Order: sequence, then C-alpha cells, then structure tokens
Amino acid sequence: MEEKINLAEKLALVNEHWSPAVVGRLNDYKIQVVKVKGEFTWHKHEGTDEFFLVLAGELAIRPRDREVRLGAGEVFVVPRGVEHCPFAETDCQLLLIEPSDKVNTGEAGGEPTVEERSI
Amino acid sequence: MEEKINLAEKLALVNEHWSPAVVGRLNDYKIQVVKVKGEFTWHKHEGTDEFFLVLAGELAIRPRDREVRLGAGEVFVVPRGVEHCPFAETDCQLLLIEPSDKVNTGEAGGEPTVEERSI
Repeated sequence: MEEKINLAEKLALVNEHWSPAVVGRLNDYKIQVVKVKGEFTWHKHEGTDEFFLVLAGELAIRPRDREVRLGAGEVFVVPRGVEHCPFAETDCQLLLIEPSDKVNTGEAGGEPTVEERSI
Repeated sequence: MEEKINLAEKLALVNEHWSPAVVGRLNDYKIQVVKVKGEFTWHKHEGTDEFFLVLAGELAIRPRDREVRLGAGEVFVVPRGVEHCPFAETDCQLLLIEPSDKVNTGEAGGEPTVEERSI
C-alpha cells in the first residue's frame, strides 16, 4: 500500500537544480518534485501537457512570446507542443506531473536531460 | 493559451463542501479544487488512481482498514480499486487530480455524486 508523500521532506533530499525526482505515480503519470534556479533550456513536449505547481519561490514559465509568472500556490499547464523555457531568479520549488515516459527536456534533449530517479 | 491558476483564488469561489470544481486540464485529466468537512461516502474507482494534495487543513483518507492523515503539503494517491472514505474534522482544502471521465463517488454513486463544473 502506498504511503503519504510529504513534499517538503522529499524536497529536502534534493540537492541539484533542474533534476526532477519521482515521489509517486498517478496511473501512468509521474509525480515529481524539483528545485530550480536560473534558466532551463527551450523545449517542448509534442505528445503531452505538463503540470507545474509552485510550492515555494517564483517561476517564470515563458511559453513562446510571453511570460507567465507563478508564485506559491499557482498552477500552470504548458499545453502540448508549446515551446517554453522555465526561469527562476532565486531558488524555487515545484511539483511537476507528466506522463512517466517523458524526459525533462521533451524533444530538445541534450545536456540538461536527466535520467529518471525516485526518492 | 491557458492562463495560470491561482488555487487560493479558485477556492474562494467554492462554497459547498464535497463539490469538486474543475480549474484546469492535464491531457485527459481534470485538475480540481475542493473544500471538505466531515465524512464523505465509502467509494472506490476501479479503473484509476486518484491524486490528493492537501492545501490547507487536515484530511484522513482512510483506505480500508487503516487511516492515512494528511496535512498541508502532503500528497496521497489512492490506488485504483481501493475503497476509501475521506474525512476532515474541520475545514480542509484539497487539490484533486483524476481522469476527466470519473465522478467524485467512483462506483458508489448515489446522493453525494455531483455533476462536473468548472470555475
């Protein structure tokens, strides 16, 4: 039987930025926590939307030609196929939900891609 | 283009207990906020897991013969097919994610079933 997931306790186990850690599953979706700071890479996910909830700090998602600024308690769903480049001026903590078979860089790939890991 | 979703602002629009309101979509899943207080009905969802995140207050999920108590910032995924009966002693605010084609009472149905609505 699954146990409850304390998001703050899980985030305390995360050291690197931009390295999502799987903390649970919802059907074929992975529930992840991630710490971010600075700029990620421009990328998109062709086949799926991507769910962001800011737990602490502030995140700019920057889909295409606009900027969506999220604070704690705010959700944004990046629609499938929309290029975006997340950015956080200072440390920011996120809950991410996306299909289990997706990687963090979508179709962009390259150096910022991380292997899936669970904590 | 979708806009950001401020969960506290959405919850301020919700008056009744146990009446989830859809605030966004993640592929074929609905993202819902709900206020709960007291006891819901015993029910299960045969075909799907169900995601709970407590935003404020405390929730007891009570799957089968045990009690899982969640506080703010804690997630629990009720596995598919597991009977559960959520309970909150005092006002509690939740984020719920489940497939769009599911109703709040799962296979139990009956009086506590509510129609899907968006806010």
